[in-house]
Amino acid sequence: MTQEIERKFLVDPSDLPEDLREADAKRIVQGYVALEEAGTEVRLRHKGARYFLTVKSGGGLTREEGEIEIDREQFDTLWPFTLRRRVEKIRHALPWGDELIELDVYEGALEGLATAEIEFPSEEASRRFEPPSWFGEEQTTNPRFKNKHLAIHGLPHQNNPEK
Amino acid sequence: MTQEIERKFLVDPSDLPEDLREADAKRIVQGYVALEEAGTEVRLRHKGARYFLTVKSGGGLTREEGEIEIDREQFDTLWPFTLRRRVEKIRHALPWGDELIELDVYEGALEGLATAEIEFPSEEASRRFEPPSWFGEEQTTNPRFKNKHLAIHGLPHQNNPEK
Repeated sequence: MTQEIERKFLVDPSDLPEDLREADAKRIVQGYVALEEAGTEVRLRHKGARYFLTVKSGGGLTREEGEIEIDREQFDTLWPFTLRRRVEKIRHALPWGDELIELDVYEGALEGLATAEIEFPSEEASRRFEPPSWFGEEQTTNPRFKNKHLAIHGLPHQNNPEK
Repeated sequence: MTQEIERKFLVDPSDLPEDLREADAKRIVQGYVALEEAGTEVRLRHKGARYFLTVKSGGGLTREEGEIEIDREQFDTLWPFTLRRRVEKIRHALPWGDELIELDVYEGALEGLATAEIEFPSEEASRRFEPPSWFGEEQTTNPRFKNKHLAIHGLPHQNNPEK
């Protein structure tokens, strides 16, 4: 069980940084096997040629996380349970000073959405971080931009950000 | 994803059948990583020398189930997420005609409870089944005797079977 300290920002997908083409990019398909009201989620993820099962509990800036790598056959056994709770995206890994920006460009029903996430070694480091100019509004504590919310409800309404 | 058709009965732990000593018996320690209101559960189980992660959805007589075998290290990574949602029991496997009775004798906080479960190939076979004389009250559709309920809430009140 490790602690995860992250911040998340919206990004305009038509205004991405130029060096993105050189960044490492992997296709991610993920789905949720279980989503508790209280906050525990169990996620399956197919990233590049690898397969993972991840459990996260808690919410907000700091969460507990446990992840195991599984094989294709194990993934295929559990994947049917994620029906109607799936997300597809391209993840670009961009080194940024001491940190790594994970820029997710969504596909399918979520096309038009892009977000940037940065994971920090401490809450202090997360507060020190100065977002690059191409970052948009911060959404770290907005539940509607969590992948589990996007997987179930789709894109938040553009004209009514409360929905 | 396979379908599971089961019936479950209470058993008096002081009045078990005599041939139980010859039955295959394994210690099971299990815990729940996630329990959705809607019915999906993600369970970790350590049975004998093996480790499993199981997803079940739906409820009642027929449920969907998917199970993968994992190794000790993977189990240890996810086990902390089952805190306060665990069950320990000895499972005896008793051949009974064409069926197999799984007799669970609970330990720890659930000591004094014993249940018998039988899995059937069809709903028709489940209706044909005649319980042996040492079976007690049927609890197939009683949510309070599900292991996930027992793991969280403990033994149902003896004097008030509604709680």
